[in-house]
Amino acid sequence: MSTTKRRPGRRPGSADTRGEILAAARKVFAEKGFDKATVRGIAREAKVDPALVHHYFETKEGMFAAAMQLPVSPETVIPLLLEGPREEIGERLVRLILRVTASPETREPLVALIRSAMTNEQAATMMREFITNALLYQVADQLKVPHLRIEAAFGQMFGVVLGRYVLKLEPLASADPEELVELLGPTIQRYFAG
Amino acid sequence: MSTTKRRPGRRPGSADTRGEILAAARKVFAEKGFDKATVRGIAREAKVDPALVHHYFETKEGMFAAAMQLPVSPETVIPLLLEGPREEIGERLVRLILRVTASPETREPLVALIRSAMTNEQAATMMREFITNALLYQVADQLKVPHLRIEAAFGQMFGVVLGRYVLKLEPLASADPEELVELLGPTIQRYFAG
Repeated sequence: MSTTKRRPGRRPGSADTRGEILAAARKVFAEKGFDKATVRGIAREAKVDPALVHHYFETKEGMFAAAMQLPVSPETVIPLLLEGPREEIGERLVRLILRVTASPETREPLVALIRSAMTNEQAATMMREFITNALLYQVADQLKVPHLRIEAAFGQMFGVVLGRYVLKLEPLASADPEELVELLGPTIQRYFAG
Repeated sequence: MSTTKRRPGRRPGSADTRGEILAAARKVFAEKGFDKATVRGIAREAKVDPALVHHYFETKEGMFAAAMQLPVSPETVIPLLLEGPREEIGERLVRLILRVTASPETREPLVALIRSAMTNEQAATMMREFITNALLYQVADQLKVPHLRIEAAFGQMFGVVLGRYVLKLEPLASADPEELVELLGPTIQRYFAG
């Protein structure tokens, strides 16, 4: 579940060019939100050629995921969710989210993004635009499910992840992942069946 | 849905005694968490007689709700949830939560408490203990539903409230409450049926 793809061939730019692009991306995403940020604008902020940005990051979604150190990018996670039987998508989604959030290293950047969004209007806009346009609407439209139903499913998993890892409610915090798959899978399946 | 009950009769203490008790309560709840805080300890912090604390606040739950300016107290909200047909409890819960969170005046203190819990370990402990012991376990035990299922229901509504009012995801943010009752009610009902 790597967040970036490197093209083969020569590597232009200094050793830290990638890091400079990511720093510029964080600044531009925070200021403009996800929708209005452009590869061109990020290149300008980083003082590099747009082609160099494209060399490191094929898409804006991938760049956002890398800039926020997210454990997964929409381009890798959406196909994982969509492949396999439609009647098992609820189970697949719950299992995927529990796997991504299980270890502190992959969970912490996600929680950091949520914390910012909870306390800062700019961060909330950035997270909202990314979640809806790059993630939820993509899945909903490919499965022909109304956006509201996907957001109900998101709400279920968002609340469970916060309850399990941030509030640490028991018995939720120490529940076995498979027990949660059994409990939550049918809820998500029902929303996706709409 | 008043959070406190005044006993009839004379009102001892200065005009701001109630406010002083609440300030002491906020300090003690933050330091000790909800479980370990006591009426006696709060009275000591406020430098008043414990009987005076009881005069203003009949229970620790009511005092917590008043101290955090919560729009509802467990003593008022749990009976509202439990009265009425068991097969409509999902619908009743969704409607109740959407009503309590609908106006900014009643929603903001709740969101403030969640924000603190998201960013501060002490506040997270306080919120966790209050939510589980004063709210979720009470409802679960009275309905003989496993604690994990109540927490799944909590997760659904917690995530929806944050998605609707903090992240402001569309179409969730402007969805009609009755549409949400129809969408989320069966999910909550299923957890409560367990």
